[in-house]
This record gives sequence, C-alpha cells and structure tokens, in this order.
Amino acid sequence: MDEFSFIEAIKQPFYRNQQIIRGIGDDAAVFREPYRDVVTAVDTFVEGVHFSRKTMEPFHVGYRILAANLSDMAAMGAEPISYLVAIVVPSSWSDNELKEVYRGLATIAKKYKVDLIGGDTVIGAQFVLTVTINGAVERGKARYRHQMQANDLIFVTGTLGDSAAGLSILLDNKRTNSVETSYLINRHRMPTPRVPFAREMARLRCVALNDISDGISSEANELAQASGLTVYLDENQIPISKALAQFPIGDQQMFKLSGGEDFELLGSIAPSEWDKLKEVAQKSATQLTQIGFVKDESERNGKVFIKSDGDYYRLLEPNGYVHRS
Amino acid sequence: MDEFSFIEAIKQPFYRNQQIIRGIGDDAAVFREPYRDVVTAVDTFVEGVHFSRKTMEPFHVGYRILAANLSDMAAMGAEPISYLVAIVVPSSWSDNELKEVYRGLATIAKKYKVDLIGGDTVIGAQFVLTVTINGAVERGKARYRHQMQANDLIFVTGTLGDSAAGLSILLDNKRTNSVETSYLINRHRMPTPRVPFAREMARLRCVALNDISDGISSEANELAQASGLTVYLDENQIPISKALAQFPIGDQQMFKLSGGEDFELLGSIAPSEWDKLKEVAQKSATQLTQIGFVKDESERNGKVFIKSDGDYYRLLEPNGYVHRS
Repeated sequence: MDEFSFIEAIKQPFYRNQQIIRGIGDDAAVFREPYRDVVTAVDTFVEGVHFSRKTMEPFHVGYRILAANLSDMAAMGAEPISYLVAIVVPSSWSDNELKEVYRGLATIAKKYKVDLIGGDTVIGAQFVLTVTINGAVERGKARYRHQMQANDLIFVTGTLGDSAAGLSILLDNKRTNSVETSYLINRHRMPTPRVPFAREMARLRCVALNDISDGISSEANELAQASGLTVYLDENQIPISKALAQFPIGDQQMFKLSGGEDFELLGSIAPSEWDKLKEVAQKSATQLTQIGFVKDESERNGKVFIKSDGDYYRLLEPNGYVHRS
Repeated sequence: MDEFSFIEAIKQPFYRNQQIIRGIGDDAAVFREPYRDVVTAVDTFVEGVHFSRKTMEPFHVGYRILAANLSDMAAMGAEPISYLVAIVVPSSWSDNELKEVYRGLATIAKKYKVDLIGGDTVIGAQFVLTVTINGAVERGKARYRHQMQANDLIFVTGTLGDSAAGLSILLDNKRTNSVETSYLINRHRMPTPRVPFAREMARLRCVALNDISDGISSEANELAQASGLTVYLDENQIPISKALAQFPIGDQQMFKLSGGEDFELLGSIAPSEWDKLKEVAQKSATQLTQIGFVKDESERNGKVFIKSDGDYYRLLEPNGYVHRS
C-alpha cells in the first residue's frame, strides 16, 4: 500500500467539528477558533520503550496514545478538537497491523468526538507513534499548575494504581481472578481520559489540574513547585479499585503512589467551591475523592508531605519514596 | 542530563508572539487566535531514511525540518506562530549533538519569529525528529490546491533542482567549483521557506499554492488533480541556478523536474492579478517566474503536460518522466 492509498484509507468521511475548514489533503490543516484559547500538546510512543508486543496489541497502541493526549487536554480544562499523527513504521509491521493502530486511534477519537486532520507516515527501523492534539478552552479558563492556592483542597478522580497493576500482570503473569485481571489490563491498555469531567468543570473558577501520567508523587510535586506552596496528602484517602485491593499491601502502595499512566486528574480547588466540584463529578459520572490540602508554609513550600502510619513524611518524586528523616 | 534539566536548557527566555499564553511547562501549550484561521501540520525526519550523518550535521537536521514545516505554512498562505518538537534519541547520540539539533531549530525559529511551545523527548533505537507547526491566516484566506482556476498562470518562486544537486554532491562527491558546491549543499541543508512571500500575498485574491517538497512533477499533478483542471508547463521556463547550470544537461533536467525538497512555492493566479503578484515578489525579495498556464479541457483535466523540444508531452509523477506516446 503506497502512502497515497493509505491516506485515502484512513481519511474520515466527514469531520465532527464545524470549525475544521480543511483536514487531510492539503499542505496543512485549518481550523477556526474565534472566541476560545487554542491548546496543543504532543506525545510520542516508542516500541520497546513505552510498550512491547507482549503488553499491547497494535489496536491498543493507537488507543492509548490518543487517550494520553486527550488526558492532557482534560488537564488543561480544554475541549479536544483534532489531532495529527506522525508514524514511523518498520517493514516488519504489516499493513493490517498498521490499520489496527489507526482503528485504535479512530475508536477513541469517535468516543471523544475528535478529528484526525493531518499526519506523516514514514518507514524506519523502530515503531514510533507521535500524536499532536489541539483543543480549545474559553478565554482565560485554562487550568494551570501554578493556579493552586493556599488552603485549597487536593482531589483526585477515579482510582490510582490500576494501570501499573495491569502492566505488572502482563509482564509477570501475576493474576488474581479473571474478572479483576481483565479490568486491570484494560485500565493499562485503554485508559479513560477525564474529558467529560473537564468539560463540566468549565463553570468553576480557579482550579489547578495535572493529569497523572507519571505517578501521583511526581504530579503532586509539580503542583507544589509550580505554585510555590506545600501539599499534604493522606495515603489512606488515595482511592484504589477493588481489583487493586487484591494485591499484597506493598504492591498496592507502590502502584498507587508511583505507578502512573492512570490518566486520572489531580487538582486543587478552594473549599468554598467543593460542593460545585461534587456536582461536576456527579454530572460527568466521575469518582471524586479529597486526598489532601494545600498550605503556605515558607520552609516547606514546593514540597509534598504524605500522612502514612499517622505521621506526615516528605513524599519524594518520582518513585513515591517516603523520606522519614 | 535528565529530561527536566534538558527542558530547562532548551526553554526560551521569552515568547515572540503575544498570543502565546502558556508554552513549555504545563500539560499543554495555549495560544489565542481571535480573528484568524489556525493552520497546523506535522513532519517527521528519520535518520537513515531522510538524512544520514554523511549529508547532515545535527544542526542541519533541526534547521531543515523546521524549514520544511515553515514551508507548509507558506504554502497555505499562513503566518507561522509556534512549534512542538517530539524527538526520539538513541543512546549513541551525545548531549551535545542533541543540543545542536535544538540550536538548528532555534536558529531558523528566530529568523522566522516562531516559538517553541512544547514537546516530548524519549530514548529509542533510531533518531526520529517530529515537528508540529501552528500558524494562522486571515479568515478564509488560506491557499488551497483546489482553488486553481481555468486560464490561471502557473508560477514558481526561486530556482528548482538545487537541493537535489546539493544532495548528489554530498552523496557522490560530484563537484563543480567550490563556491557553487557550497551554495548547492546549503540549499539542501538549509532551505529557505517562502514565508515573507506568503505574508505579502495576503492582499491578493484567489491563489492556489503548493510547496515543492516532492519535485515539481508531483506537485503540479497534485494541483491538477485537486482542481480537476489541466496544467501546461514549459520546461525551458523552469528557473535553475547558475550553480545547477554547471551540471550535465541530463542531471539538470532530472534535478529540476523531480528533485524536490527545494521548498519553493508552485502556484496559480488569475492573469489579471499577475502584476500584483510581481509586486509581492519584489517586496519580499523573491524570484518569481511564470512557467505555464491552466486550461479546462475535459479529456486532459487532472493531468500535467510539459513542453519539451517544442511539443507538449504528458508529465508523469513522481519522477518527472515524460510520456511521449
């Protein structure tokens, strides 16, 4: 299949977003954004580094990278609109496997109503998938890390550690029962970006957000550093799934604190806005849990502390290591 | 150097475009485009496929890919604004070589006033550089291939075949004299995107444009197919540089018709607008040459014919092959 036929094969018959004026088929794509801020991010996924054939089918490779990109949009409070795909394909990959990657991309794209508007397909020695996503948010309503404020509550969506547990099952053949196994594997291969939650959040005022791609330890540190404030977390409040609760306690702790790739949202909000955030969670059918709070304590600012065994310890990124000295 | 230090090292101290609200340092970048159409494109450059260490230094790798992206913006009539860089780096590349790639990117970025607003840096087996560019154009003023009209004049900027000649020098050690050699090598490694020409063109009405990345044969066929019209070219009118004119006539012909990667613009414009286009070329110090015209001839529409040895022959893509039957 030559590149032209391939582009014809993956072209969408129509675009879901009216603002897309021109998609695939010209030197560049065009979309119109009159009253909103455009938001964009790029993610790269390399075979042998970010995934292997043991842990992902080609379908999941496409699905998961776009999930990660959509999660970036959610973390900015932005509505995703469109994406571009640059792909390096080794000759060992068949046309069918390549189509499966695009089927994975198209499946989650349809779910979250985003359009494929451009790309580049080239031959290479190692499979590399790079997705650039574009979205928009009402002017001034993007959610930045530095917007965290003293006395804010810290919250998280969904449950943490599932993706890391799913990966450990795939890599080490760890198993509990079959239902839980497939749940955790799916959470790793086909994570759920919190787009509806971010959309419902539009009416709220100041919210700081991060998506959890690198583990909550790392993400909480980013919030603390960007805002110059101190974050306190309670380890026992960090929500985990029933499936993860079947694992040994040490695994649970490791997966939920440093697993990452759950693509849940970690954020902070003023206590006075908490009830509104609960409504947002309800409307978007999203699990919401308060797991900590924010303080302005000059000597501790920029750092994260976690309550474990009744005391607060410094939580060090990126591995969730608790520093007890 | 870890990723965090690296991002700190490549961060710009300030952004050149006021509409950039947030660049590197959050989950995504944000830019504001109130009254214009946003335009975006992605290009991927793979070591061993698109370049080798024999033909490019790391500096040129960065410079050239962004030149290609800027050329995509020019081909849409758009003003480039910002770019994102996803890079896969093998462990065999040193930190200094990687910095050189970014110095190449930053050098041309400064020249054309575009900002680096995000990216992803990962380790892999093969060097891959993917650049996504964003730009904007006044509403409805993007230049599409299908906008070519019957009786339009066909024009090209600059000279053709230089990049292919430069590459042949690098690969086969072909040489003329040293001044011409370095001119042609530079045209290959550091092509000039026609951004100022595209900018000056904003006041013109309907213009169809393509940038010449794949050779004029292929690009002219794209214009003919997108518009459903017939393109006639005159081989003797296709401008070449003095440096290319030193090559044997067969090489000249091959390089100018099918060489590609000159990143010049090929377009069509109504004869009544020709004088205005000449002013645009003058204001932007760009060489402009009429090389053909457009007809609506039902049986020949979608095809390109070229005058060679006094007669018109069908010009077949992608290799510039002239079909005389």
